Amino acid sequence: ARGDGGISLSAGINWGLILKPAIVAQNKAVMDRFVPSFCGGKLAYACLSMTDEAGGADSENPLLAGAGIKTTAKLDGDEYVINGNKSWPTHGGIAECYLTVCTTDPNAGDEGVALIYVPKDTPGLTFGKPEKKMLFKTSINSPVHYDNVRVPREYRLAGPGMDAHFYHFIAAGTGWHSATMALGIAERAFEIVLDYTGTRQGGFKPVRQHSIVAGIIADMAIGINMMKASIYNLSYMLDHLDVYGPPWSPEFISRATTTRVFAGDTAVEIINKGAELLGSMAISEDFPYEKCLRDAKITQLWLGGQQISRYRVARGYYDLKNWA
Amino acid sequence: ARGDGGISLSAGINWGLILKPAIVAQNKAVMDRFVPSFCGGKLAYACLSMTDEAGGADSENPLLAGAGIKTTAKLDGDEYVINGNKSWPTHGGIAECYLTVCTTDPNAGDEGVALIYVPKDTPGLTFGKPEKKMLFKTSINSPVHYDNVRVPREYRLAGPGMDAHFYHFIAAGTGWHSATMALGIAERAFEIVLDYTGTRQGGFKPVRQHSIVAGIIADMAIGINMMKASIYNLSYMLDHLDVYGPPWSPEFISRATTTRVFAGDTAVEIINKGAELLGSMAISEDFPYEKCLRDAKITQLWLGGQQISRYRVARGYYDLKNWA
Amino acid sequence: ARGDGGISLSAGINWGLILKPAIVAQNKAVMDRFVPSFCGGKLAYACLSMTDEAGGADSENPLLAGAGIKTTAKLDGDEYVINGNKSWPTHGGIAECYLTVCTTDPNAGDEGVALIYVPKDTPGLTFGKPEKKMLFKTSINSPVHYDNVRVPREYRLAGPGMDAHFYHFIAAGTGWHSATMALGIAERAFEIVLDYTGTRQGGFKPVRQHSIVAGIIADMAIGINMMKASIYNLSYMLDHLDVYGPPWSPEFISRATTTRVFAGDTAVEIINKGAELLGSMAISEDFPYEKCLRDAKITQLWLGGQQISRYRVARGYYDLKNWA
Amino acid sequence: ARGDGGISLSAGINWGLILKPAIVAQNKAVMDRFVPSFCGGKLAYACLSMTDEAGGADSENPLLAGAGIKTTAKLDGDEYVINGNKSWPTHGGIAECYLTVCTTDPNAGDEGVALIYVPKDTPGLTFGKPEKKMLFKTSINSPVHYDNVRVPREYRLAGPGMDAHFYHFIAAGTGWHSATMALGIAERAFEIVLDYTGTRQGGFKPVRQHSIVAGIIADMAIGINMMKASIYNLSYMLDHLDVYGPPWSPEFISRATTTRVFAGDTAVEIINKGAELLGSMAISEDFPYEKCLRDAKITQLWLGGQQISRYRVARGYYDLKNWA
Ligand SMILES: Cc1cc2nc3c(=O)[nH]c(=O)nc-3n(C[C@H](O)[C@H](O)[C@H](O)COP(=O)(O)OP(=O)(O)OC[C@H]3O[C@@H](n4cnc5c(N)ncnc54)[C@H](O)[C@@H]3O)c2cc1C
Ligand SMILES: Cc1cc2nc3c(=O)[nH]c(=O)nc-3n(C[C@H](O)[C@H](O)[C@H](O)COP(=O)(O)OP(=O)(O)OC[C@H]3O[C@@H](n4cnc5c(N)ncnc54)[C@H](O)[C@@H]3O)c2cc1C
Ligand SMILES: Cc1cc2nc3c(=O)[nH]c(=O)nc-3n(C[C@H](O)[C@H](O)[C@H](O)COP(=O)(O)OP(=O)(O)OC[C@H]3O[C@@H](n4cnc5c(N)ncnc54)[C@H](O)[C@@H]3O)c2cc1C
Ligand SMILES: Cc1cc2nc3c(=O)[nH]c(=O)nc-3n(C[C@H](O)[C@H](O)[C@H](O)COP(=O)(O)OP(=O)(O)OC[C@H]3O[C@@H](n4cnc5c(N)ncnc54)[C@H](O)[C@@H]3O)c2cc1C
Repeated sequence: ARGDGGISLSAGINWGLILKPAIVAQNKAVMDRFVPSFCGGKLAYACLSMTDEAGGADSENPLLAGAGIKTTAKLDGDEYVINGNKSWPTHGGIAECYLTVCTTDPNAGDEGVALIYVPKDTPGLTFGKPEKKMLFKTSINSPVHYDNVRVPREYRLAGPGMDAHFYHFIAAGTGWHSATMALGIAERAFEIVLDYTGTRQGGFKPVRQHSIVAGIIADMAIGINMMKASIYNLSYMLDHLDVYGPPWSPEFISRATTTRVFAGDTAVEIINKGAELLGSMAISEDFPYEKCLRDAKITQLWLGGQQISRYRVARGYYDLKNWA
Repeated sequence: ARGDGGISLSAGINWGLILKPAIVAQNKAVMDRFVPSFCGGKLAYACLSMTDEAGGADSENPLLAGAGIKTTAKLDGDEYVINGNKSWPTHGGIAECYLTVCTTDPNAGDEGVALIYVPKDTPGLTFGKPEKKMLFKTSINSPVHYDNVRVPREYRLAGPGMDAHFYHFIAAGTGWHSATMALGIAERAFEIVLDYTGTRQGGFKPVRQHSIVAGIIADMAIGINMMKASIYNLSYMLDHLDVYGPPWSPEFISRATTTRVFAGDTAVEIINKGAELLGSMAISEDFPYEKCLRDAKITQLWLGGQQISRYRVARGYYDLKNWA
Repeated sequence: ARGDGGISLSAGINWGLILKPAIVAQNKAVMDRFVPSFCGGKLAYACLSMTDEAGGADSENPLLAGAGIKTTAKLDGDEYVINGNKSWPTHGGIAECYLTVCTTDPNAGDEGVALIYVPKDTPGLTFGKPEKKMLFKTSINSPVHYDNVRVPREYRLAGPGMDAHFYHFIAAGTGWHSATMALGIAERAFEIVLDYTGTRQGGFKPVRQHSIVAGIIADMAIGINMMKASIYNLSYMLDHLDVYGPPWSPEFISRATTTRVFAGDTAVEIINKGAELLGSMAISEDFPYEKCLRDAKITQLWLGGQQISRYRVARGYYDLKNWA
Repeated sequence: ARGDGGISLSAGINWGLILKPAIVAQNKAVMDRFVPSFCGGKLAYACLSMTDEAGGADSENPLLAGAGIKTTAKLDGDEYVINGNKSWPTHGGIAECYLTVCTTDPNAGDEGVALIYVPKDTPGLTFGKPEKKMLFKTSINSPVHYDNVRVPREYRLAGPGMDAHFYHFIAAGTGWHSATMALGIAERAFEIVLDYTGTRQGGFKPVRQHSIVAGIIADMAIGINMMKASIYNLSYMLDHLDVYGPPWSPEFISRATTTRVFAGDTAVEIINKGAELLGSMAISEDFPYEKCLRDAKITQLWLGGQQISRYRVARGYYDLKNWA
């Protein structure tokens, strides 16, 4: 993801997040229906439709155990009927396929969580106009509205209980993905800083030859190395689930989320610090740095934000209760 | 400066920074020439033309004692002949009057510093095209080029030695001004956060009713109160120079610069932190917060940046040498 | 308080916190009984007996509105009967006079808060053995036990409602006092760092002549200047209550507490940072710095700690509820 | 190293740092002389005698390329004659064997660095009295004086050039070791916090059930997980030098040092933060936390400190020059 976060985001969402679950869950109906669109010559998009308009943090909040999800799915014969409003999902409006986070019963805990695939052309599925945002301008986020949207019951990912597991797994997976994006943006920023301070003169020598500047460059390098180590480590864990246990355990999610929170906070911090070494160039639109400065911010905000994420982290160590 | 930093900047530069020095220095030639333009019915701009293209930090670096200024002024009869290139000055190209930081001799220390007023229509004075920047979009910054620009010697502010004093005073004054802007932007951000988290629901109560959120709101309030206290304090000092001594002493400049560095760093930090409480709204261009997020950054970058500013701070306590 | 926090603490507690309230409240019984001991030739101590053994944060927590106080006072004829256990009060066991924070009814809100003066020799008042602590070794903290301790009802400071006001005022006052101590310790640390790095050689010049070191020294100076400005500001407010309103308003307490939280956090941060410039000397018991490093920590911990303090800060801006 | 840093330190120094180099370098004279003492039934100590009295940072500073080492070694026939004064080495006075960092010629760069093993009973080798320190009280640090100390030339580790390589390797190795100690101390602190806040009540529930507290616990967990990931990662690199190249390359040392700096800073930060959750217990000498608070500090100070370490980090990315 070095360079453009928006493009990495698109790629990640398509395969890693949306279709892989169906493959793992061996959901043949979903595979038959959607995989072809993604294997043709035409570029196709998928969408993780999760954030409810009334509050994305609530749908993500592990302490609410599904009670915060506001989009409902009711089984009616062989079909699920979906109602609700999603906000800000990437690829809203342009995607072929919407993996929708719903609840069949907000008081049923994990049993109530449902992940349902919805094709773009389903009646009742409509889209708002794209959001204007200060960052990731190459990707598209539009509201998704569900008004009595009906899909075959087989489009539900894996059924009660298992869907919640997948949802938790997605939390871990998107945490990993968010961290790689934070890393990519930070690495790009670091390259620019290293380069610019190597040629720009200040106090009659290259800027980076002042120890106070070397210290900041070192701090950028430290942050990047720690992100990398933690991402490698987590990747290893994801590749060895036999050793580390199911990726939906509170411990696994906690571990994954430490990487996400750290990467987001560190990227924002070191990119802000590095900006100080560039003078006006840091904010010039004719120079590549200001894009890093803007883009990094999202890695703290999405997927419920850093506060909800800290709940996830704490939950790996003790039974943090919801006191809503 | 609550709200729009760009407008506060314009106002501050016109009076506080550019014309007041001439009045204090009792420079009649400058007053006669320029004051009328600023008192007519038409809006007139002034420009502090300080940052050399080859490195703004160098012109500001107190350790270089004038040796870093690259724009030269040579006395030729009754005129100063100015040559050099300035970058990024606010109001470059639209101002009537350019207070230009020059050197008559880079090795002469304070004696070599010259502050010279240049009228817009002087032959040899030309302007580049406005810079595109990610922040303060309402203000204009364009390069200013001096190619054998000739002005009467009376347009020099106050002469050898005294000009350097004024230049140091400007460092203190712009530090104060930069801090008020950081404060204004931070206060605006705080209002938005306080407001939004008071109505937005999360975990079945207003977001700001979670203690983890109250803690962040408290941190914003702490930062703002400390900025305010420090600015009041500094204002008091500026109003009582009889007690606190000349505003160009290393001690006074150091004290003023602590306010500037703290305000810039704190504004950036708390606005970034507050953003975490807004979810996607933090970066939506249909919501007022993202402007705060962008604008705050400049208060760390201009006027030589936070590193050079820290040199100024340290110089109030001991003789920090230049080891260029 | 430059130098020894423990001594400043003792002085502050005696006058500012314990006896002044009685004078302000015009409580003649208390003045007659206690003032003489403090005006004789002999050194006499007073004690603010506030922290309940079962949780000091609870007695201080503004959100609990008195419900967290565990030491009870029951009116029996003309006497109050006090029962409870206090932990860690400074001067416990050596003081002549114990200003005891009690509740007459934990559910009565502010009306239930009672501040009662208890003489040392009252039957039923006993003391535990002094606590061993890693800091402030010159001051004494011992548990205070109340077992049916009876005092005349006139020893209650000012009666229902007013006692709560005084208790809130004490929160503001101790916040101010805690900040001055943080400042004093930080100033001492700064002197040591400035001095040591001025003579100690590293890289063939005095340590403080490296820009990376100058930057840290500047950060220490910035922290100290901000503490000072904020304390001056708050002192001015305390001296002009006619302008700033009653010192027990949520807004006033909030403002006072911003100073306390900032001062504690900043002292700990800059003293830790400064330590890095001293090598092994930072932790040598033959060098004065390690005492600063240890002592500073208390300014974050006492009086309910930084989290409860942040509640106080937030309460100045909105009605932060207790969700216990 | 969970629990007691002092003991981990002793163990680490004996084998990892002192004797392993001789084994790797195949220095038979040294092995014959010293290995037996360490294999007997009696506990034997080794000492890395590196820090010069006149400045430990200088001996460690990579920018000085050996010019900062003040202890000299002169070849006289078949013997090296060593003169100098070392400060603060662990096990000074009680060790059997002193691996001494010397220079044969301060201007010879890497060629001038010499690592020489000195037996305790060598004439001219004397010891000062143990330093009193606020931390690691279980380990011993005493000055080591060399007054024309003579040892066989075979006791030099591996000869010109190679000794410098080993010295750089030691920088990487001690960086790793320092990080493991920071981790161990931080883990102990985390356990205490998790435990104490799980039973201690505040606001009528266990302290850790407040979201503001959960956030701090999460931050501790994040710090610890990042340290761990980075240490695992570095251990893997140390075990696969065939892939990652010689451990004395600037890149390898830089990578190792990122782990050290991060671990030291993070341990100090999170242990300080965690202390805020314990109230007075944080600093009570009858509770295990205050030891963590004290011990952590050393992991930033030794081995040249965090500033010199940042030079090492930066040197992995560009040729940071010495401007002494
Ligand atoms: C570029 C971009 C891409 C995105 N991509 C997707 C996508 O692909 N799919 C998708 O579904 N969504 C996506 N989103 C939406 C994003 O995930 C949500 O914005 C995010 O989860 C936060 O939701 P919200 O904005 O509704 O925040 P809110 O729910 O309004 O929460 C705001 C803040 O309130 C606080 N808060 C809320 N509840 C609590 C609590 N219980 N305790 C403490 N604090 C609390 C937190 O600080 C939180 O950050 C995207 C957003 C952006 C900007
Ligand atoms: C919105 C805006 C408004 C502005 N308004 C004005 C104005 O009104 N008038 C005006 O004259 N200018 C103005 N400027 C320019 C601004 O003041 C300069 O950009 C600033 O002083 C830094 O100069 P530079 O960009 O050339 O940085 P450089 O000189 O290239 O320095 C870049 C960085 O290098 C480092 N550095 C340089 N020297 C040293 C050293 N000796 N030791 C350690 N580090 C060093 C510092 O980190 C510094 O920040 C404005 C800029 C902006 C963005
Ligand atoms: C040197 C020294 C001098 C002292 N002097 C005095 C004195 O003169 N008089 C006196 O009465 N006391 C004194 N004390 C005691 C001190 O004020 C208390 O220790 C302090 O108020 C904290 O109380 P505690 O230790 O019982 O903490 P606890 O009540 O056990 O609280 C521990 C932590 O739990 C958390 N917590 C608790 N409740 C909540 C909540 N609702 N929400 C979020 N987090 C919460 C906070 O982080 C808090 O810091 C002194 C202590 C020391 C060390
Ligand atoms: C518990 C403990 C165990 C120890 N164990 C050992 C051991 O086993 N063997 C051993 O040899 N030593 C040991 N030491 C000593 C330790 O390694 C040194 O104290 C440390 O390297 C710093 O040396 P110093 O105290 O002389 O610092 P100084 O050299 O006095 O440096 C002080 C500070 O000055 C600054 N500084 C110096 N030069 C520069 C520069 N060029 N640029 C910028 N800043 C600079 C840095 O901030 C540095 O931290 C131990 C110390 C302790 C406390």
